[in-house]
Amino acid sequence: MKKFMNGAETILAESLDGFVAAHGDIVAMGDERKFVRRATPAPGKVALISGGGSGHEPLHAGFVGHGMLDAACPGQVFTSPTPDQMIAAAEAVDGGAGVLFIVKNYEGDVMNFEMAAEMAGREIMTVVTDDDVAVETSTYSIGRRGVAGTMVVEKVVGAAAEEGLSLADLKALGDRVNAATRSMGVALTSCTVPAAGSPTFAIGDDEMEMGVGIHGEPGRRRVKLEPAAAIAEEMITAIASELGDAGDALLLVNGFGGTPLMELYLMYHEARAKLEARGYRVARSLVGNFVTSLEMAGCSLTVTRLDDEIARLWDAPAHTAALRLGM
Amino acid sequence: MKKFMNGAETILAESLDGFVAAHGDIVAMGDERKFVRRATPAPGKVALISGGGSGHEPLHAGFVGHGMLDAACPGQVFTSPTPDQMIAAAEAVDGGAGVLFIVKNYEGDVMNFEMAAEMAGREIMTVVTDDDVAVETSTYSIGRRGVAGTMVVEKVVGAAAEEGLSLADLKALGDRVNAATRSMGVALTSCTVPAAGSPTFAIGDDEMEMGVGIHGEPGRRRVKLEPAAAIAEEMITAIASELGDAGDALLLVNGFGGTPLMELYLMYHEARAKLEARGYRVARSLVGNFVTSLEMAGCSLTVTRLDDEIARLWDAPAHTAALRLGM
Repeated sequence: MKKFMNGAETILAESLDGFVAAHGDIVAMGDERKFVRRATPAPGKVALISGGGSGHEPLHAGFVGHGMLDAACPGQVFTSPTPDQMIAAAEAVDGGAGVLFIVKNYEGDVMNFEMAAEMAGREIMTVVTDDDVAVETSTYSIGRRGVAGTMVVEKVVGAAAEEGLSLADLKALGDRVNAATRSMGVALTSCTVPAAGSPTFAIGDDEMEMGVGIHGEPGRRRVKLEPAAAIAEEMITAIASELGDAGDALLLVNGFGGTPLMELYLMYHEARAKLEARGYRVARSLVGNFVTSLEMAGCSLTVTRLDDEIARLWDAPAHTAALRLGM
Repeated sequence: MKKFMNGAETILAESLDGFVAAHGDIVAMGDERKFVRRATPAPGKVALISGGGSGHEPLHAGFVGHGMLDAACPGQVFTSPTPDQMIAAAEAVDGGAGVLFIVKNYEGDVMNFEMAAEMAGREIMTVVTDDDVAVETSTYSIGRRGVAGTMVVEKVVGAAAEEGLSLADLKALGDRVNAATRSMGVALTSCTVPAAGSPTFAIGDDEMEMGVGIHGEPGRRRVKLEPAAAIAEEMITAIASELGDAGDALLLVNGFGGTPLMELYLMYHEARAKLEARGYRVARSLVGNFVTSLEMAGCSLTVTRLDDEIARLWDAPAHTAALRLGM
C-alpha cells in the first residue's frame, strides 16, 4: 500500500483538518470532528445533512455550502458515521424549519441515520438514494446501492431548500430526483482501504468489473476489458432500460479517483453519443471525480431525466468546495 | 495497460470532442482540433494562449474561459503541439491587442511556440514557466521544468488581461509571478502513455520518486516511501530555500491524477503546517487535480509568494471548465 499518510488511524482526522483549513471561507469543523458544517449558517431554511463512510471524497463534505448541504458527517473509511454525529450536526444546523437527511442506501448508513432521526428530538425526514442499476442487492445493501446520483439529489434538493421549500416538499422532491436518476459503474482496478493495507479485490491485468460498487463490491460480471464505446453502450443500455428513451437528460461522468480526466471526457463523448442515439438530448453535463472509491481506476455514468423544475434547480447557484455554479 | 479508450490513435480526438461537448457554454473547438478557444470571444484585450502535450488535463484546455486563457493548443500525449496549432489559435483569438504565449519550459514546447511567434506575423510575447525546484535540467528540458505553477501564472495573468493590461505589462507580470512561484513533485507510481502501452518507469512497491517531473522524468532520488509529514517537510524545505521564509503565500496541492482527494487534503494539512512553522501565512489555497500526469499517483506542492496585486488578481472572477471563482 502506497498512500500519503502518517498512519491509518490518523488519515481521516488529518485529511479533514486540511479540508477545513483549505476552505475556511465555506466550511467549519464541528466539535470532535463529528461533522463539517457551513462556515456561515443559513437560518430559516430546512437544514440538509448527509454523510457516510469516508473515501468517497469530495462526497459529502465537498458539497457543504450555499445551495447544497448544511452539514456532512464523515465516517471512517467505507464505514457509516455513528448516530451521535448526525445528532450533533442536526443540533448545530437546524434553524427551526426541520432537517432533511440524505442517505445512500447501505445498511449501516440507513440504520445509523434512522437511529439519529429517532433520538434527535426534532423534526427530521429522510431521502434514501438507490440509483445504482447494476445489482439488486449487494455486500452492504438490501436493495440497490446509492452511488453518484446522490450528488444530483444533494444539488437539486439543496437549491430548493435555499428557496425556502418546506421539509415535506423537499423530501418529496428528493424522492422524485432519486427516482429520475440511474447510475452504473465499472472498475479497472481495486482500491485499498488504509486500515486493511491490501487491495479490496483482485482483478486481472486485462479485466474489468462491470457494475462495481463504490466500495469495490462485486458488480454484474468480471470480463475482459473492452473498448470504451462498448463499455459505454452496456452501461447506457442498462440505465436507459429503466429510464426509458428520449427526453432531456443530465449526464454525469464520475471518476472513481484513479482515472485521468482525459479518459473521463472520452467516456463522456461515448456516453453522450449512446444517449443521443436513443433520442435523449443531453442538456446538462458534469465530468470529474465527485463520488470516488479512494484510488480505484474506473468510472460511473449517471443519467437524470430533467424536467423544467429539476433543470432550473440544477442551474441554481452553488458555492461548495467541490462544485461551484453561478456565484 | 488498462484505459478507457478505443485506440491510442484516437484517444486525444475523442477526449477533446467530449470536453468541448461537455462545456459548450465555455469553450469551442478550433478547426481540425488544433486548439480549444473561448465560446465567446473577448475582443479588445490581449489574447492569452497556452498549450503543451496532452495528459496533463485539465491543464491547459480546462483553463480556457473568462479570466484565464483565450485558447489552448493540445499536443499528442506528452508531446508538444506544432507551430501551426499556435498560429491558427493566434489567428482566431487575437483581437488586435497582441498575443501572450504561456509556455512550460520543455525544449519541444519552447521551440515550437518560438517558431509560431516568428511565423504568425503578429505581435506576440512569451512567458516561459520554470517553477520546478527539483532538478536543474531534465529529460526534456534545459533549465528547470515548468509544472503546476503554470496554472497560477495563467490565473493571475488572465485576470490582468481581463482588466486591459498591455501586452508588455502582462509579459512582465507573468515573469514576476513565475519568479515568485516554486513547485516540487513526488510520485508513488508511474504513468502509462497510451501509445507506449507500458509504464514510463519502474518503481518498487515501497518506493517513491522524490522530485519527479510531470512526464515521469526522474527527480532527485529514489527512496523508500516516508510518512506524509516527512515528504511535505522535504518538499517545503526545497521550495522555501528559494523563496525565503515568512510572508503571505498561495499554497497549491496538486494531484497527478491517481491520488485520492483524501490524501491531497492530508498533504495540504502537512504542507501548510510546514509553511506556518517558517513564518508564512497561507492566505490562499487550492487542492485538487489540476496539472496531472495521466494516472500517476503522486502530487506536487506549489507555493506562490503573494503581494497585494497577485492576491487581488488571484481572487478575480474566473469561469473555466476546471476552475471557477466568483462568477
